[in-house]
Amino acid sequence: MPKHTKQTTNGAQLKLRRVAIDTYHENVAFLNRNCELYRAEGFQALSKVAVMANGKRIIAVLNIVDDDHIVPPQEVGLAEQAFDQLGLPEGGLVHIAHAEPPASMEAVRRKIAGERLELDDFREITQDIIANRYSKMELAAFLVSSMHSGLDREEIYSLTRAMTETGERLNWGSGLVVDKHCIGGIPGNRTSMLIVPIVASHGLLMPKTSSRAITSPAGTADTMAILAEVDLSPEAMHAVVSKTHGCLAWGGKARLAPADDILISVERPLGIDSEGQMVASILSKKIAAGATHLLIDIPLGPSAKVRHIQQALHLRKLFEYIGDRLGLRLEVMITDGRQPIGRGIGPMLEAHDVMLVLENHPEAPADLRQKTLNLAGRILEFDPDVRGGQGYALARDILDSGRAKHKMAEIIEAQGGKPLDFTPAPLHEEICAANDGVVTSIDNYQLARIARMAGAPMVARAGVELLKKIGDKVEQGEGLYRIYAEYPADFSFATNVARENAGYTIGREQDIVKPYMEF
Amino acid sequence: MPKHTKQTTNGAQLKLRRVAIDTYHENVAFLNRNCELYRAEGFQALSKVAVMANGKRIIAVLNIVDDDHIVPPQEVGLAEQAFDQLGLPEGGLVHIAHAEPPASMEAVRRKIAGERLELDDFREITQDIIANRYSKMELAAFLVSSMHSGLDREEIYSLTRAMTETGERLNWGSGLVVDKHCIGGIPGNRTSMLIVPIVASHGLLMPKTSSRAITSPAGTADTMAILAEVDLSPEAMHAVVSKTHGCLAWGGKARLAPADDILISVERPLGIDSEGQMVASILSKKIAAGATHLLIDIPLGPSAKVRHIQQALHLRKLFEYIGDRLGLRLEVMITDGRQPIGRGIGPMLEAHDVMLVLENHPEAPADLRQKTLNLAGRILEFDPDVRGGQGYALARDILDSGRAKHKMAEIIEAQGGKPLDFTPAPLHEEICAANDGVVTSIDNYQLARIARMAGAPMVARAGVELLKKIGDKVEQGEGLYRIYAEYPADFSFATNVARENAGYTIGREQDIVKPYMEF
Repeated sequence: MPKHTKQTTNGAQLKLRRVAIDTYHENVAFLNRNCELYRAEGFQALSKVAVMANGKRIIAVLNIVDDDHIVPPQEVGLAEQAFDQLGLPEGGLVHIAHAEPPASMEAVRRKIAGERLELDDFREITQDIIANRYSKMELAAFLVSSMHSGLDREEIYSLTRAMTETGERLNWGSGLVVDKHCIGGIPGNRTSMLIVPIVASHGLLMPKTSSRAITSPAGTADTMAILAEVDLSPEAMHAVVSKTHGCLAWGGKARLAPADDILISVERPLGIDSEGQMVASILSKKIAAGATHLLIDIPLGPSAKVRHIQQALHLRKLFEYIGDRLGLRLEVMITDGRQPIGRGIGPMLEAHDVMLVLENHPEAPADLRQKTLNLAGRILEFDPDVRGGQGYALARDILDSGRAKHKMAEIIEAQGGKPLDFTPAPLHEEICAANDGVVTSIDNYQLARIARMAGAPMVARAGVELLKKIGDKVEQGEGLYRIYAEYPADFSFATNVARENAGYTIGREQDIVKPYMEF
Repeated sequence: MPKHTKQTTNGAQLKLRRVAIDTYHENVAFLNRNCELYRAEGFQALSKVAVMANGKRIIAVLNIVDDDHIVPPQEVGLAEQAFDQLGLPEGGLVHIAHAEPPASMEAVRRKIAGERLELDDFREITQDIIANRYSKMELAAFLVSSMHSGLDREEIYSLTRAMTETGERLNWGSGLVVDKHCIGGIPGNRTSMLIVPIVASHGLLMPKTSSRAITSPAGTADTMAILAEVDLSPEAMHAVVSKTHGCLAWGGKARLAPADDILISVERPLGIDSEGQMVASILSKKIAAGATHLLIDIPLGPSAKVRHIQQALHLRKLFEYIGDRLGLRLEVMITDGRQPIGRGIGPMLEAHDVMLVLENHPEAPADLRQKTLNLAGRILEFDPDVRGGQGYALARDILDSGRAKHKMAEIIEAQGGKPLDFTPAPLHEEICAANDGVVTSIDNYQLARIARMAGAPMVARAGVELLKKIGDKVEQGEGLYRIYAEYPADFSFATNVARENAGYTIGREQDIVKPYMEF
């Protein structure tokens, strides 16, 4: 890659220092305002500099420091991640020089100007991103340029493929490795923890890697962490899968499609969300995780991520197109996303729901069981020996017979099981109905927010337990849900927000929004 | 370095600390990774936090620190600018809380989605920008969104007006305050330093504020700084103008259209450039500086910013449209931008060119004189008493009679004149013609780059002196230009780059690109 770096800097060298600031996938270098090199070379704050020694070289964004305790004039500081990337000891002598923006920014500028990009452009962009050559500003520029009408289907394919080519790729030594992914937005939606044991009982390989919660009150990895270790190396995952056919691990260690993680770190605080980026993100991660057959769950509802059936159908076509281009057998199900699934919201409460369904307990949440069987049934039909339409009955038999529960116990044991304790956090309060009627809608976003404020997912025992769901009759003063918190500050914060807007509407039977699902 | 001292905070309040890092128009807050509040509240790196006390409140981007010396667990650090903005003493107790992105990001997201924005949207965006509520990522998102789907003329008008409404506005107490602006890209183009004394001699008010060089080897402010002080307060500018009718000051102190400065700080490192943002930037600054009559210079040439006549004409219409909507009397001239203007490139060499023209010296560069008279003539015609077509002759008389030189001496004296010394930097080398022929083109970009590498504008005496211009005959081995540098490293770097690509093409008379200028 051509770089126009000014190699000599008046012969001067600076001492390297580690600055213990976590700059989150952005290489940052710090120079003292009184550094002679800074003055002589006319470095600009926010411009790019190269830091190099012994043939090693990194590119970083420059910040200026006025405190000799952070970085004195004769030193150059590197924030944690840049320091680690350079891989040189503190106190060593380095050169610094002006550096150009990463070469692939030229492609981003073409994208901004409205051009189509090719596979090679996306390859260069993702390579530069994972080498931490993009600043946060540059990442934002790339994301915004590829929003909305920004990427056509061919470009989304190229981006997905380029992201798949970065980082590791897991290989399970089988031509049939199933996986599922939900596009998110529905609290309590812990079907993966039920589908994996059902599908693995049948004998299909389902090595599931999941994320921890980012903006939600619990991710599958947070919830599984209540029952077992989830922070597994690729080797440990292989051991669990070869023993049980399944696993439920956190995907963070495996470095799957790492460009995606970096893009998400900018997309999230910006609150921007593009279909193309989402599809590329999901599929690149799944392909990198070694999946050959994938079921995508698109929940549809007035407070879900996807709010209109047309949007859901469009998204399905897009997933199908990219999946086909990449040789992935992919099915999409549009599901009922009008309200949270199950009763619990928060890692421990959700783990409890999962266990109740596995135990066929009379108090197991019916909707979680039902949705699980629908999805698991479709996944079982990826098996060529399962006749079309028989998957649901097969999944139900596996669950009802206790084989799924037994399989889950095996997986938990193989992942280093933890002692079971589903006692929720001690502080609790019920949020009650303001009037008589029927629950006509539940706001997924508001319930997730309240559970987060109560402490989930950081405080595993905190969260929300739903006492009423859509269609349930309630009387004025009757509890709609219960908030659990560990700390008084969290507790008062969550209960105050819930009292202001409970997230429930209570009305007449006929006001209930009908689901548009494909069950 | 001692790290990770686990200490409890009192839950709700943290001690305020100033962190001496210049984050360049971005409010940044620092929390220690072991701060209990950080853990309990689930703050995310790069998310927004509010820091508040005594009714004061700022929004900042959160960075996480692993070094107790930078910020210990029971404190919250604010980078310099955020600290100054909050205006509380170090050690005071503050609250922190999750904060939403600035409200106007909602409008940015609408722009990303392809919608038109209204004046009120742009007002909210610019207000949030100057209150430092936008992170660099958010600024990048706004800039790219307004390039990609583009801004229509009405939106550019709204943005310009909104930017004009932020910050200060200079008032010169006259209905006729003239100004000029060149859209840039041509090295050595120091006409302002000649136009101001000519126009002020005639009696028109021309209080010129200029920028320092950002990506070029010299700005008007850098060049004027060779002769006099340019860092004038608004009061000092008023004093100079009331005495001489003109001034040549650096605009940085005056806080004119500050939203523009912040946007440029992101636009520049991203290397993106949109017509709409450029027009809004130029006109908002000029209106804020109190101009009522403005001449815009659009240099056109194969290595200028504007490379096609169609683009130049389109840009002219846009300037005219926005100028008219804002009540500004505005003229646009498309000028010859095929090569650098004058002989010198670099602050001191350019100041020397200016003085030679003022002195009517036989060695004064003819093109700088010619261009100056054309532009000054048009500005003089803003005076209702000057008959159309007479401006050029009037300007020439003022220059030839020595009145312009005398006026410049007055301005220099009023601005605190410096001793004159035009000795260039000691290290020098001539770059010579590789073959016989005629100079057919000179690459503005490459010459600017070489002058910058030689040290300009930081090293005022460094730069490039052109010995040949387009149309000049040269023999093999004859000097094309001379590079001057102060430091050996700069010198060898600049000469190496020049030897690799001199930036000159030598060919036949008929290969010379004809200018499309409006003289």
